[in-house]
Amino acid sequence: MNEFALIDKIKKKIPKNLQGPLGIGDDAGGLKAPKGHEIVWTVDAMVEGIDFLRVEKSKKRLGALSPEQAGRKALAINLSDLAAMGAKPLGCVVSLGIPPNMPEKWVLRFYDGLITFAKQYKTACVGGDITSAPKFFASVSLAGSAPAKSLVRRSGAKPGHGIAVTGALGGSLRGSHASFTPRIEEACFLAQSFKPSAMIDISDGLLQDLGHILESSKAGAEIEMGEIPISKDAARMANRNPMKAVERACTDGEDFELLFTVPASNKQKLTKVWQRKFPEVPLSWIGRVEKQKGVRWTFKGRKIRAPQFKRLGFQHFR
Amino acid sequence: MNEFALIDKIKKKIPKNLQGPLGIGDDAGGLKAPKGHEIVWTVDAMVEGIDFLRVEKSKKRLGALSPEQAGRKALAINLSDLAAMGAKPLGCVVSLGIPPNMPEKWVLRFYDGLITFAKQYKTACVGGDITSAPKFFASVSLAGSAPAKSLVRRSGAKPGHGIAVTGALGGSLRGSHASFTPRIEEACFLAQSFKPSAMIDISDGLLQDLGHILESSKAGAEIEMGEIPISKDAARMANRNPMKAVERACTDGEDFELLFTVPASNKQKLTKVWQRKFPEVPLSWIGRVEKQKGVRWTFKGRKIRAPQFKRLGFQHFR
Repeated sequence: MNEFALIDKIKKKIPKNLQGPLGIGDDAGGLKAPKGHEIVWTVDAMVEGIDFLRVEKSKKRLGALSPEQAGRKALAINLSDLAAMGAKPLGCVVSLGIPPNMPEKWVLRFYDGLITFAKQYKTACVGGDITSAPKFFASVSLAGSAPAKSLVRRSGAKPGHGIAVTGALGGSLRGSHASFTPRIEEACFLAQSFKPSAMIDISDGLLQDLGHILESSKAGAEIEMGEIPISKDAARMANRNPMKAVERACTDGEDFELLFTVPASNKQKLTKVWQRKFPEVPLSWIGRVEKQKGVRWTFKGRKIRAPQFKRLGFQHFR
Repeated sequence: MNEFALIDKIKKKIPKNLQGPLGIGDDAGGLKAPKGHEIVWTVDAMVEGIDFLRVEKSKKRLGALSPEQAGRKALAINLSDLAAMGAKPLGCVVSLGIPPNMPEKWVLRFYDGLITFAKQYKTACVGGDITSAPKFFASVSLAGSAPAKSLVRRSGAKPGHGIAVTGALGGSLRGSHASFTPRIEEACFLAQSFKPSAMIDISDGLLQDLGHILESSKAGAEIEMGEIPISKDAARMANRNPMKAVERACTDGEDFELLFTVPASNKQKLTKVWQRKFPEVPLSWIGRVEKQKGVRWTFKGRKIRAPQFKRLGFQHFR
């Protein structure tokens, strides 16, 4: 594989209108935000053998990704992060580590997946870097923007606020981790029309990511177990054991759904508008923020003992 | 190693004034350019065993980096890219792949090196990502800004323009690859006072990076071998063989010096101002841009055959 020939082939894949304000081919790429917007940016990496298994074609094997799926996901996990801030994507830079024995074709197909997805979300691909590595990795850094007043942080949840989650959770390994749609449209709508007090995307698992919000907001929560939305895949993997299904929904991770908080007074109106605007995306009110730190549980409104899950959520090191 | 405890320790290392406009702790960090400035950004990765060897303490071993040196270099290679655009740094996001057996201490010392250097260059560390990987990698994405009219591209070199290079080249493996100072000050001065027609930082080697400028500018060049600045380390490694020393200066790479072109009419004035402003940084006029594609060579003003180097410069794949 020739490094510069490969870079050249990748460049040719990227449409001119997706090369950012400076085009591709300098030491750095350009970035321009609409007037009055703040720029936010994030980075997220995927490593072969750790975050996914590399296969030639999409297979039923759990955690396996085709090159196109891997490229799509490398961008999608970052789009999901931006969504959680209420921001729209502007452009990305892509850093790849490529094993010496990897066919160039795999890399090009990875880019096909990434670029197809970038087009869909009007995300420029303004630059990148290629190095050699023992296992394939892709580290995508994505920048986006939002009007300053509609940026949503993790830190604004207040006692009494309702806690909501989009979609259904758990079992993402069966497929949704590779094919999920980042909730950009939903998040921007929320940010502009209801300004959540805190928001995060669920990548580590509902409980762990709720923990991130509560820690940033210096608060606790009460969670109603009966309201946690359980995906079909989680139910199937739990083999009809309801507690196992709840556990999956709470801790599997890679759901890439939105978890957010809003003042209780907004719940009713938001529910109504949401059903009209996003009829295919469930919205579940799973609890409320409390002053007392930690998480307490209810089931059908009655206090219950906190369930003992094997783990809180996904961690890269144990 | 606990992922979130580690992230917490890293956060605590980063001074508040270096956490960007939003601070650290959300799904994305903030980025703000001075008024009238364009934002540019870049990404560059370093992989253990490929781009450097990991050691506990700085040793004489070629290519070996202590954790602090690795952290410094991960940022420095990106600062050098920004310099080549005539831009000043704003902030970075850091993506790390960490082998399961790596001591947490190594990662924290890596960050110490990176942050010390970030302070020196007023570069915010606005976010990051940590994943597990078979070998350590660090992919840093750096954003910076410049007044729109002083951004320098690779594509503006015109026939007749003089070709200049800063510092001395070759032999970086003996140490300078780990300790070099990115030429930000020099590059911003050039961009604002002399607006080079093209500029690049030498990472792949003089000849290869000159090739990048010439390709972008659709031009060729004549190079005067006697003017190529050879570093002491290149001379030493070449064992008194002058052609080997020239070869090292032309192809070793990782010099992170500036290579740029300016209209011939500016050469004299620039030389004079440069000597006063940067008395410790040599400036060498190594040739001129020509219309005819390809590179032709002279020695002491007389045409010579192009030297036959073993390779053009550094490539990650062969």
